[in-house]
Amino acid sequence: MEFSLGQIAELIGGKVEGDNTLKVRRLDKIQEGLPGGISFLSNEKYESFIYETKATAVIVSENFEPNKPLSTTLIRVKNAYEGFTTLLEAYAMLVQSSKSGIEEPSFFDETSSIGANYYRGAFSYVGKNCIIGSSVKIYPNAFIGNNVKIGNNTVIHAGVKIYDNTQIGENCEFHPGAVIGGDGFGFAPLPDGSFKKIPQLGNVVIEDNVSIGTNTTVDCATMGSTLIKKGAKIDNLVQIAHNVIIGENTVIAAQTGISGSTEIGKNCMIAGKAGIVGHIKIADNTTVGANTGVSKNITKSGQTLFGYVGYDIKDFLKSYSLFKKLPELLDRIKELEKKP
Amino acid sequence: MEFSLGQIAELIGGKVEGDNTLKVRRLDKIQEGLPGGISFLSNEKYESFIYETKATAVIVSENFEPNKPLSTTLIRVKNAYEGFTTLLEAYAMLVQSSKSGIEEPSFFDETSSIGANYYRGAFSYVGKNCIIGSSVKIYPNAFIGNNVKIGNNTVIHAGVKIYDNTQIGENCEFHPGAVIGGDGFGFAPLPDGSFKKIPQLGNVVIEDNVSIGTNTTVDCATMGSTLIKKGAKIDNLVQIAHNVIIGENTVIAAQTGISGSTEIGKNCMIAGKAGIVGHIKIADNTTVGANTGVSKNITKSGQTLFGYVGYDIKDFLKSYSLFKKLPELLDRIKELEKKP
Amino acid sequence: MEFSLGQIAELIGGKVEGDNTLKVRRLDKIQEGLPGGISFLSNEKYESFIYETKATAVIVSENFEPNKPLSTTLIRVKNAYEGFTTLLEAYAMLVQSSKSGIEEPSFFDETSSIGANYYRGAFSYVGKNCIIGSSVKIYPNAFIGNNVKIGNNTVIHAGVKIYDNTQIGENCEFHPGAVIGGDGFGFAPLPDGSFKKIPQLGNVVIEDNVSIGTNTTVDCATMGSTLIKKGAKIDNLVQIAHNVIIGENTVIAAQTGISGSTEIGKNCMIAGKAGIVGHIKIADNTTVGANTGVSKNITKSGQTLFGYVGYDIKDFLKSYSLFKKLPELLDRIKELEKKP
Repeated sequence: MEFSLGQIAELIGGKVEGDNTLKVRRLDKIQEGLPGGISFLSNEKYESFIYETKATAVIVSENFEPNKPLSTTLIRVKNAYEGFTTLLEAYAMLVQSSKSGIEEPSFFDETSSIGANYYRGAFSYVGKNCIIGSSVKIYPNAFIGNNVKIGNNTVIHAGVKIYDNTQIGENCEFHPGAVIGGDGFGFAPLPDGSFKKIPQLGNVVIEDNVSIGTNTTVDCATMGSTLIKKGAKIDNLVQIAHNVIIGENTVIAAQTGISGSTEIGKNCMIAGKAGIVGHIKIADNTTVGANTGVSKNITKSGQTLFGYVGYDIKDFLKSYSLFKKLPELLDRIKELEKKP
Repeated sequence: MEFSLGQIAELIGGKVEGDNTLKVRRLDKIQEGLPGGISFLSNEKYESFIYETKATAVIVSENFEPNKPLSTTLIRVKNAYEGFTTLLEAYAMLVQSSKSGIEEPSFFDETSSIGANYYRGAFSYVGKNCIIGSSVKIYPNAFIGNNVKIGNNTVIHAGVKIYDNTQIGENCEFHPGAVIGGDGFGFAPLPDGSFKKIPQLGNVVIEDNVSIGTNTTVDCATMGSTLIKKGAKIDNLVQIAHNVIIGENTVIAAQTGISGSTEIGKNCMIAGKAGIVGHIKIADNTTVGANTGVSKNITKSGQTLFGYVGYDIKDFLKSYSLFKKLPELLDRIKELEKKP
Repeated sequence: MEFSLGQIAELIGGKVEGDNTLKVRRLDKIQEGLPGGISFLSNEKYESFIYETKATAVIVSENFEPNKPLSTTLIRVKNAYEGFTTLLEAYAMLVQSSKSGIEEPSFFDETSSIGANYYRGAFSYVGKNCIIGSSVKIYPNAFIGNNVKIGNNTVIHAGVKIYDNTQIGENCEFHPGAVIGGDGFGFAPLPDGSFKKIPQLGNVVIEDNVSIGTNTTVDCATMGSTLIKKGAKIDNLVQIAHNVIIGENTVIAAQTGISGSTEIGKNCMIAGKAGIVGHIKIADNTTVGANTGVSKNITKSGQTLFGYVGYDIKDFLKSYSLFKKLPELLDRIKELEKKP
């Protein structure tokens, strides 16, 4: 499939600077652009590539001002990143096939129901009394236990496991190997030093438009619900413990862990490998840096935390730069001690 | 199902303060308690909720003294947490169905055996020469390789993979997606900078009453056995490398990693995201804090370690509080340097 | 099977010091050696065990000089570790069965092809238009999507998921539960605070001789390819984000995370739990310590980084030893301040 730059400009609401009859048939990264490809420039880190790219065209923002000659054709839009995203979406509609139908063998208990336009892959399993909406895709080797509700247009990728009593909204996506509703980690100590398991009788509730990453684990509540609110986006290998609440549109990057009963506000950004202790509350709009530990309530909205035991990022970095200079500080103290 | 407070008090060895004919039919979290529910109060962080809860009854410890009026009915027991756990267990027996029988298609090699009262879910796989005890539950999409032994009453959840020669005790639980006996990470460097795999010929031995969390990985030994002793409880997304030994009743929280050939003593508590290097020994009763690195032998029992390269938690926190004040310390040094 | 020490010495190019007709039938760890077993001593940490071992024989390096009497028989080779590895490989050939054939039910789309001498386990799934080489082993419950290419002799373990358009070389090994080609974590913010998914249209390319650990996740590129070059060895529970490039023969230990679009050079060693931010380049031959964060380009080859925000390991450890002494430094500053 080939498209003219004029067609693309129309799709993304942009303007071609040059020959709008040129044709492209591929999306290229700007640093790997070749004739027939279209790229975009948004992050200024990559600006140098636009002067060298062999891509036929590059989408740039309205205010981009080249400081060297260009051999590619520009399409200007209000926001290059958004424009390119629109193009990606259109392209995805063309190239990504939509799965439908049943592949056998698959297992679907007769007490469960599923809406129209579904896909049930081979070796997928649906237990008892499940109510599954329409246009739901269940990939091969996925497991859905008993009494699970799943809203319309939700995608359950290969090997996902969704345990009993989980409730899932519409337009969610569960990436391969994610586990929803496994038992929370609850054990009561016994006098002899051993532990007995505390039954985990609650469930997981996931609202609309949530994305759960590959091999991520979301445990069921001891009682009540572990709750992930609408629009939250969770990356790969994240651990969400029992009775955690994740606020609306909060984004959590890979390998982060949230301990039991903690409540994260809405519109938070939590970077990779962060660790948040149990039984605390994090205010809305909090940013938590990579590998940052959070050990107490964050009550003021809009802060950015960073550090081993995290606090204000500017203060941490100031101290960390002095940490690097500790040998020098020691020398200065020694010098002072030599004074009479 | 409804139960009177009198019936519940009898079950958990407690005493009703008020009307013991009141009925409850639900376990509620105290902060979400509603009429018809019974809650508990153990962690004092949650005390404020008892004065507001709409739960019909709350289980509290003998020595709880309310400092405001209550509108709920108290059931006093020696230990509120244990009392509630007992109640949870009784409730779990009532509501959790016990799986049994075979769902087809499933795969079970004719050279293997399994005891009475089993569950073998659809798409579960059991290889050659396995000896599986009675009352073992194997959920859908679980994989069990060759020459695996599994003791009575052990539960293998959906999508668990147990590789060849693994030996598992009684009353163990393997949460969804856990992998036991994958190859250890062993490669020998070659002169050209590449690596060749060192065959991993050992196995994994897991004793009785062990719990292994969701998507956790326990590698087989290079030779001999990776060993998890009885009563150990391991959370989600934990990495246990080849030839590691985990002591009795040791508890390891989510996302912790233990490197090869390290031996952890018994009754240790290891918090989330800790990292322990290879080829060391950790004494019994050691507590390792969240995100703490342990880089050398811990020979004295009963210590609590914390920090980036972990050591005594009190000492670390003292230094960390001064780390935060490094800019101020620098100013004080500058001030001193100004003196004649 | 029994072998004489003479036979073993010949296999590994070594020399028996003593009776070369003695027989062994087992590989033992030196600290657990028993009669009939053969062990090796390479890491000097374990030297004390050679004086106590009951193993019939121990493989040691040419230059090993015992400082106490020995009751075991030595086999000397140039390099004890390599000698033992050779022995392990020979033993593995004898004891590890090679899977072959088809177990039913399995799913294999008619538009796909697979070479000779394959294994396709029960409940394994191969989608459309895949081209799979010869001697490829696909274990039970593995999922392979559409348009996937897999080279000869590659092993796909139980429950591995390989998504559409992935290209895999020869002699690779994918350990259980690994996920290749799941969607990258890309969302564009919308004015109302919610996010829309950016389609992830690229793929994953994995060259020859790559090993991917248990439950590790390698995301597909937004555009272009996430690329793992030949000989790279990646451990368990590692996160490789979209558009990352991993260089030849680079080794990455468990629970490390590499953020999007970062490029790691060749022959790097990255220890466990390291975290590397996105959009940076790490030079060849870089060593990154355990739990180390890397936040900017590393342009000079051959460095060893360590620390919370990592830099030169020697400098970090110097500062960390002073961090431990901060209370003492404060006292010294106070003492200085008392001076007139």
